[in-house]
Amino acid sequence: MKLSTRLAGLIDALRALPGVGPKTAQRMAFHLLQEDRAGAQCLADALGTALAAVRRCERCRMLTEAELCAICSSPQRDSALLCVVESAADVLAIEQSGSYRGRYFVLMGHLSPLDGIGPEQLGARELDALLAAGGVEELILATNSTVEGEATAHFLGELAQRRGVRASRIAHGVPMGGELEYVDGGTLAHALSGRQLIG
Amino acid sequence: MKLSTRLAGLIDALRALPGVGPKTAQRMAFHLLQEDRAGAQCLADALGTALAAVRRCERCRMLTEAELCAICSSPQRDSALLCVVESAADVLAIEQSGSYRGRYFVLMGHLSPLDGIGPEQLGARELDALLAAGGVEELILATNSTVEGEATAHFLGELAQRRGVRASRIAHGVPMGGELEYVDGGTLAHALSGRQLIG
Repeated sequence: MKLSTRLAGLIDALRALPGVGPKTAQRMAFHLLQEDRAGAQCLADALGTALAAVRRCERCRMLTEAELCAICSSPQRDSALLCVVESAADVLAIEQSGSYRGRYFVLMGHLSPLDGIGPEQLGARELDALLAAGGVEELILATNSTVEGEATAHFLGELAQRRGVRASRIAHGVPMGGELEYVDGGTLAHALSGRQLIG
Repeated sequence: MKLSTRLAGLIDALRALPGVGPKTAQRMAFHLLQEDRAGAQCLADALGTALAAVRRCERCRMLTEAELCAICSSPQRDSALLCVVESAADVLAIEQSGSYRGRYFVLMGHLSPLDGIGPEQLGARELDALLAAGGVEELILATNSTVEGEATAHFLGELAQRRGVRASRIAHGVPMGGELEYVDGGTLAHALSGRQLIG
């Protein structure tokens, strides 16, 4: 049985969502059209409004509606610290930890030459300009600890070095509350090599 | 950190999708706004178009763009058979099996008094009118084999009986290719009580 054109179109469009395959997209489309038309209308409106209003902060590339995001425009943040993360979600995660008072720079990805993502796409030039402008004393590299994330951190570390800015990498090790027995070998190796003297 | 109004609004609206919680909705919103604005625009458009164009078939309540769906308007379908299912997805599943040539009636749910879903919401009156109009010789009850699905099947079976129409329930038993060892007790009990003579 062939589905109607617009219904098939909606199922197809829903696959733009991350983690949504053909079966899930079909379930979503049926749910919206059969049981939640109000929610569907609301979603269509919210998408339109957000696309029109939300853009990137001119300084840190975080998603925002103003020229500068809330963090960049706050006088209470320490402008000597700049934390580089891969995505806006990482900013939220660090903010929720309540342990950081500096500013951010959001790469919106990581180096991935095969996908055509080079330094240019990650805003390396903008970051370089920020470092050149002075005021930043430490660049904290908080990219993910994947191969691409490490490569990106390495690249940005060298960029900071050329500008005479201290660069640091967030610590990797055993998660708080984690049991050694269940921690993978790579993490354990990091935890051991990064051990710190106590007392 | 507080997200901008429209961004928070989009995250909220995405939760209308089935199986999407706050964390997934946030990931979806960030993905759409950071990496796939074209896809987001496409989705907004597809939602709008589908909401405007897709409606229920006047005869069987299946999702369609015309007055009657493709199945109801096809002269090749056997109008003496009427298969009652809970959702449009079930119609697709049965059509894909290629084993049915009759028509359908889509309840768009099952009896669930606590959620305010009674016979009226399931289109029992329309179904009754179809049966009263004559032409239907057998009503095949293909609701899910959940408690609510069974209750719905029972209710509709009685409705068919009052109209003098034969009612049948799809068979429950061991799935094809399934190993007895891994089949649950309820299914096995059904498979045994529904056994058929061979040869």
